[in-house]
Amino acid sequence: MPDFVHQRHKPPTSLERPRDLVLVCAPLRSNINLSRIVRTASCCGVSRLIACGPSKIDTKVSRVTSDEFPIEKHRSLPPVLKALRGEGYQLVGLEQTTNSQNLHQFSFVHKTAIVVGNERLGLTEDALVLLDHVVEIPVYGLPYSYNVATATTMALYEFCRQYPTG
Amino acid sequence: MPDFVHQRHKPPTSLERPRDLVLVCAPLRSNINLSRIVRTASCCGVSRLIACGPSKIDTKVSRVTSDEFPIEKHRSLPPVLKALRGEGYQLVGLEQTTNSQNLHQFSFVHKTAIVVGNERLGLTEDALVLLDHVVEIPVYGLPYSYNVATATTMALYEFCRQYPTG
Repeated sequence: MPDFVHQRHKPPTSLERPRDLVLVCAPLRSNINLSRIVRTASCCGVSRLIACGPSKIDTKVSRVTSDEFPIEKHRSLPPVLKALRGEGYQLVGLEQTTNSQNLHQFSFVHKTAIVVGNERLGLTEDALVLLDHVVEIPVYGLPYSYNVATATTMALYEFCRQYPTG
Repeated sequence: MPDFVHQRHKPPTSLERPRDLVLVCAPLRSNINLSRIVRTASCCGVSRLIACGPSKIDTKVSRVTSDEFPIEKHRSLPPVLKALRGEGYQLVGLEQTTNSQNLHQFSFVHKTAIVVGNERLGLTEDALVLLDHVVEIPVYGLPYSYNVATATTMALYEFCRQYPTG
């Protein structure tokens, strides 16, 4: 009997309480990046995904329908951030800024909104002023920047690592 | 003066010693997935990337040339794994199997080869028998599986978190 036998269709990990994790995307250039983010967010048990700007999900990439994982669409980012702040979410941006903290050491609170910026522009000033914290991810080699869906994946992974059962 | 001011072109994190991390990809279906993996691996300071099967990197996706981040190409996976084992690498597969360990709790050794499988087939039996460990990533929601580049990103992030300076 070999040590490792492939297990297809293993049951997912159950959450002991619902996640209170919101993922907020600034208007993105690429619907493919957004669709990849949708798949990862749904797999990670994100409770709400808010996409700003014009967006269209490619379900061949996201692998979930809008019924299975609804997306809230808004025109622009700052009003969304103000509303979430009013609902008591800690707003954590993903960006390289002054006073940004290393994702490796950052402790998330349970009620968090992770905010990701545009592929080219990142998070702009009108969003940065509304954030509680900014986290950045160490980069060690060329091209010295992660793709937006890749960076989002790392932040969601780190949140799940800190809250493995919700 | 606002708390968070965008910093473009921040210097990368320096490694105090070279990483001894090899990333090995089984023959993949999608060159786009492979090209995304190349970008992330290069950013994470992976020392060698070995791609099995026919492959073509799209540098618009990878954002690095083959001079900047060379890729070793091989025909099939098992001989590569045997060679790495001979060089003293601990072989860690990314898959859902019997006896697989949770990535959240897994401790990597410094000299590691992370092995990722095909999008559809995952890691097949001829590779699984050669591995020292298998790690899996908790999944909480639909579609109940991470894209191969997304899963690879999580494993590389976890390795870098454990070895932030090499």
